[in-house]
Amino acid sequence: MHVLVTGGAGFVGSHLIDLLVARGDTVSVYDNLSSGREEFLSHHDERVKLIVADLLDLDEVKSAMKDIDMVFHLAANPDIRLGTKVTDTDLKQGTIATYNVLEAMRLEGVKKIAFSSSSVVYGEADEMPTPENYGPLLPISLYGASKLGSEALITSWVGTFELQAWLFRFANIVGARGTHGVIFDFIHKLKADQSRLEVLGNGRQEKSYMEVIDCARAMIHLTEETDKPVNCFNLGTHDTCSVRRIAEIVIEEIGFKDVSIEYTGGDRGWAGDVPKTMLDPSKLFATGYAPNYNSEESIRHTAATLIQEIGI
Amino acid sequence: MHVLVTGGAGFVGSHLIDLLVARGDTVSVYDNLSSGREEFLSHHDERVKLIVADLLDLDEVKSAMKDIDMVFHLAANPDIRLGTKVTDTDLKQGTIATYNVLEAMRLEGVKKIAFSSSSVVYGEADEMPTPENYGPLLPISLYGASKLGSEALITSWVGTFELQAWLFRFANIVGARGTHGVIFDFIHKLKADQSRLEVLGNGRQEKSYMEVIDCARAMIHLTEETDKPVNCFNLGTHDTCSVRRIAEIVIEEIGFKDVSIEYTGGDRGWAGDVPKTMLDPSKLFATGYAPNYNSEESIRHTAATLIQEIGI
Repeated sequence: MHVLVTGGAGFVGSHLIDLLVARGDTVSVYDNLSSGREEFLSHHDERVKLIVADLLDLDEVKSAMKDIDMVFHLAANPDIRLGTKVTDTDLKQGTIATYNVLEAMRLEGVKKIAFSSSSVVYGEADEMPTPENYGPLLPISLYGASKLGSEALITSWVGTFELQAWLFRFANIVGARGTHGVIFDFIHKLKADQSRLEVLGNGRQEKSYMEVIDCARAMIHLTEETDKPVNCFNLGTHDTCSVRRIAEIVIEEIGFKDVSIEYTGGDRGWAGDVPKTMLDPSKLFATGYAPNYNSEESIRHTAATLIQEIGI
Repeated sequence: MHVLVTGGAGFVGSHLIDLLVARGDTVSVYDNLSSGREEFLSHHDERVKLIVADLLDLDEVKSAMKDIDMVFHLAANPDIRLGTKVTDTDLKQGTIATYNVLEAMRLEGVKKIAFSSSSVVYGEADEMPTPENYGPLLPISLYGASKLGSEALITSWVGTFELQAWLFRFANIVGARGTHGVIFDFIHKLKADQSRLEVLGNGRQEKSYMEVIDCARAMIHLTEETDKPVNCFNLGTHDTCSVRRIAEIVIEEIGFKDVSIEYTGGDRGWAGDVPKTMLDPSKLFATGYAPNYNSEESIRHTAATLIQEIGI
């Protein structure tokens, strides 16, 4: 299969491409390298072709779409906190970028799309664990709005132009090649000052985590094993981990002694942060898939890996 | 109160303004007159001020937002079928226009917004009547995608910048000053040819209808009587009416004899048409509000009114 992966030089995308190549696919990678890195793809041969371009350039997207069998659309602004300062990043790099992907697919006759949505579409859900049919969907971050807006565009293309879609609502994905997120931030903070670790909020924020290779395996599994017009799945583990526990695990793995953990206070890390998310992954598990790591194991494995990658 | 009504020269907006003025408000109307009409506002005095401008012009929106207490954001592309031909109309006039409204509110410190969403956010729901907490939301039209994308932007502004919002998921709204929709189309078709009436689809499409003044009253009632950060309500009646029945009622009201009703066939009127929608209005009714007309009464009342307005 000839697959186009948007954001393919990024954290999740590059792991997905490893598995797609192992399956025998050829892969076009569409990435503006704003957070993706060429080195994440450098171990591949000519079966992986990198197109350095922006999704806001519809002509480029259209030309990348020629002879593609399926799109994995993963490109997005990875920094969910940015929306509190700059309000049009998620609109452009999320919603409008997704529109361009869909429009290019329509114009070039490409019919299958898998999309990396997020648990943040649920907002502050009052049902936990939260299943895929939870409603109403009231996201509280601009990033979340762009994910729900993109999901809606995709299902409207399914309904109007006969696409087929997989919507993956990701837990917090962690693992090797991570370039952002709480574990990455903690390691950088500790590298700068081994005596203290500042934690945004009161540390009681609690979320579902999934290891990135588990996530990539789940995406491929679901696109192979499910076949409705729209296939919507939570991608996560059955448990959660608190930010407080993550801080402890990172400190254990880094091996520093007597680190003072300091909390900035408040029940969320920033405006738009969802204090508690717990995805219900039973629909995923019912397809015969199970992740290798639970939330805490994913955190510990990631902390150990990123400490090596970042270097102390 | 000084209220800004986007799309205020349009069908629903102009009725809403009649009630706002009766309440004692002053109203700024923001409308590009693409489907709105100045004549719908011509009976008002200086308490209603029309600003002819486009929501895609952020500077204009910002300047209209000065000293506003509350926004009713009703502007949108009214022709849901257009999305099958031109794919960026709903994105621009729906989602991006909503972004501009929210951004202007943030910059000018305006904190309350009521939004005309739609039953089409539910897509082809398998639960009917469909309540507000139905999920997953998989709209099948580009118009529906823009409504859900706009809802998501609004709730993200609530979560991130402390706005307060009312999301109104409209049934099919019908009534005086209608400028589009099935009754309007049927009257124009019969005016052109009294011997036959072409109906898109098999006529078995069945939807909830609400009379426009009932709808405007419900909006004002809910913004006065509910006070959560996000207040999400279906606005509709407890019943439905089929397209076949609408054709019969329009013919009865227009008084033509021996009209042959011809169906184009298929279970929907066009790609992206939801064949059956039935909103659950119990959350609205529980606030002490009840519409004056049910679906069939709304249709008959509208047919009689529009026949007068259009003239045969």
